[in-house]
Amino acid sequence: MVVKIDDVARVAGVSKTTVSRVLNNRGYLSEKTIKKVHDAMESLNYQPNAVARQLYKKETKLVGLIFPTVDNPFFGQLVAELEKRLFDSGFKVLIGNSMNDPAKEEMYLKELISNQVDGLIVGAQNRGIDEYHKANLPVVAIDRVMNEDIPVIASDNYMGGKLATELLINSGAKHIMNTDGPINLETPAHRRRDAYEEVMKSHNMVPHTYLVDFSWDIKKKKQAVKEMFAKYPEMDGIFVTNDMDAALVWRTATELGYKVPDDLKIVGYDGANITRVLLPELTTIEQPVEEMAKMAVSTLITRINGEDTPLEQIVPVKIWHGTSV
Amino acid sequence: MVVKIDDVARVAGVSKTTVSRVLNNRGYLSEKTIKKVHDAMESLNYQPNAVARQLYKKETKLVGLIFPTVDNPFFGQLVAELEKRLFDSGFKVLIGNSMNDPAKEEMYLKELISNQVDGLIVGAQNRGIDEYHKANLPVVAIDRVMNEDIPVIASDNYMGGKLATELLINSGAKHIMNTDGPINLETPAHRRRDAYEEVMKSHNMVPHTYLVDFSWDIKKKKQAVKEMFAKYPEMDGIFVTNDMDAALVWRTATELGYKVPDDLKIVGYDGANITRVLLPELTTIEQPVEEMAKMAVSTLITRINGEDTPLEQIVPVKIWHGTSV
Repeated sequence: MVVKIDDVARVAGVSKTTVSRVLNNRGYLSEKTIKKVHDAMESLNYQPNAVARQLYKKETKLVGLIFPTVDNPFFGQLVAELEKRLFDSGFKVLIGNSMNDPAKEEMYLKELISNQVDGLIVGAQNRGIDEYHKANLPVVAIDRVMNEDIPVIASDNYMGGKLATELLINSGAKHIMNTDGPINLETPAHRRRDAYEEVMKSHNMVPHTYLVDFSWDIKKKKQAVKEMFAKYPEMDGIFVTNDMDAALVWRTATELGYKVPDDLKIVGYDGANITRVLLPELTTIEQPVEEMAKMAVSTLITRINGEDTPLEQIVPVKIWHGTSV
Repeated sequence: MVVKIDDVARVAGVSKTTVSRVLNNRGYLSEKTIKKVHDAMESLNYQPNAVARQLYKKETKLVGLIFPTVDNPFFGQLVAELEKRLFDSGFKVLIGNSMNDPAKEEMYLKELISNQVDGLIVGAQNRGIDEYHKANLPVVAIDRVMNEDIPVIASDNYMGGKLATELLINSGAKHIMNTDGPINLETPAHRRRDAYEEVMKSHNMVPHTYLVDFSWDIKKKKQAVKEMFAKYPEMDGIFVTNDMDAALVWRTATELGYKVPDDLKIVGYDGANITRVLLPELTTIEQPVEEMAKMAVSTLITRINGEDTPLEQIVPVKIWHGTSV
């Protein structure tokens, strides 16, 4: 049997309106009345119907997350951290994995808006999704440029690119490559590449960036990496823009007979929990995932409460020293 | 400006009730009326309010997922696969990461029921969560025993344990250990251990299972693994119940001067996408995650439609051959 608000009213000996007031914390209520209603709810094991309740309160206590996929060490950890902190702040989480597909991102966005989420945290990276502007909702972006009035939380990508490139140069590498995603994705992650190019030039070295798209499947990525080795046989150092791709570069190098780090030095980016357990040998730039999640949640809650927040918050990174450099 | 149903009615030149009928596909409606309403919705960019709509339809098109955490290669891939397939079937996904904390699982469950999800897919592993019985909702469990009328999807854990143990024995290991989580978690994963013990005994070898709890943090796990090496110095083979822990065993072995596989042979369990990129050298039992997700979603949808499904569906596993055996 489903317990209804009428049952609670009957057992508590009050009107339905009073029960509804207690549920929504509205109007004047005596301590005694509140206790009677709570006791009745408890004795009946009444589950307030969130769907009905939110029609009164105009708050759903739902937050939507749109990220490329949780099947990735960095995004998996980020979503887990966001979800934990949102839960602790009284929110539930609706997730969408956009896989960098603009059509899927747009559909998720429409669905989430239609479910009246109180706010969104997004890390997907597609251009020109108009719905974000139409939504009229608090939105926080992680590592994504969104032009308008939308606050962005990012790791210090420029510093990361600089640390990585300088580490490779100082370790004696002469022909250093970089990988990056497509330039038409508007992500602050491109600053890693900017830093790489500037540091290379300041050392009178020629920068070469090779395209490896995050959304490619493993087979296509592996093919691209093999082509890179064929095209740049002199390569003796590489700064790879994420750890999963760095692992692929390492594997391919080994298959081709390179010794890491003697013949090829590799620096990755992300340094997520899973990677540091499965492949701690990979030298990488560690993003402060916990801090980014904490900042994103507090920024979103501030916006939900109608207050202003900084438009850009940058969190410092550090080097994880493995054995690949 | 938020577009309301009144605006749609005004622009379409019909009553509010008619618009509501079109939205909910109820009552007799002429093609012409339907078109007028759809045209008006399009010209106003009207987003039907899912919260209000679901009050009519008694369907939320929401499915809740409760798993320990997405910050893990297996659960990250599983949740991503479930979410993709649910989305393709017209459902959105609410997630909760229980971290094997019964209190958190119970809270999530209450929240999800209160949000009127159409069904649940659970992989968390706590005993005695009464709410599942009270919920009166379609539930599908993955790798979890739930006694009642709740269908379970699992990889063939017994076969996995058998394959792993036989592989170690056939490779010449004499002192083979096993790790497992706490026995009071009711998970079919314990069948891996059952298989290990039976295969060991049938070869006149003594089985030893060592406790490593999934929910411990990395530091505590590492401490436990070190103690295991101290306690069983003769160990020359080990079947570890998940790949993250297997990586930890491998690392600790290397630090202690063991050579893998010469001094110690290691077999893991899971073989998820991320692991096969970051640590493909790990020989492991590969769970068919895509197939399990597909089966869980189709089973849940069948249950939501009020039809029966088998109570247990077992999916075969296979060996991923790395270099650790």
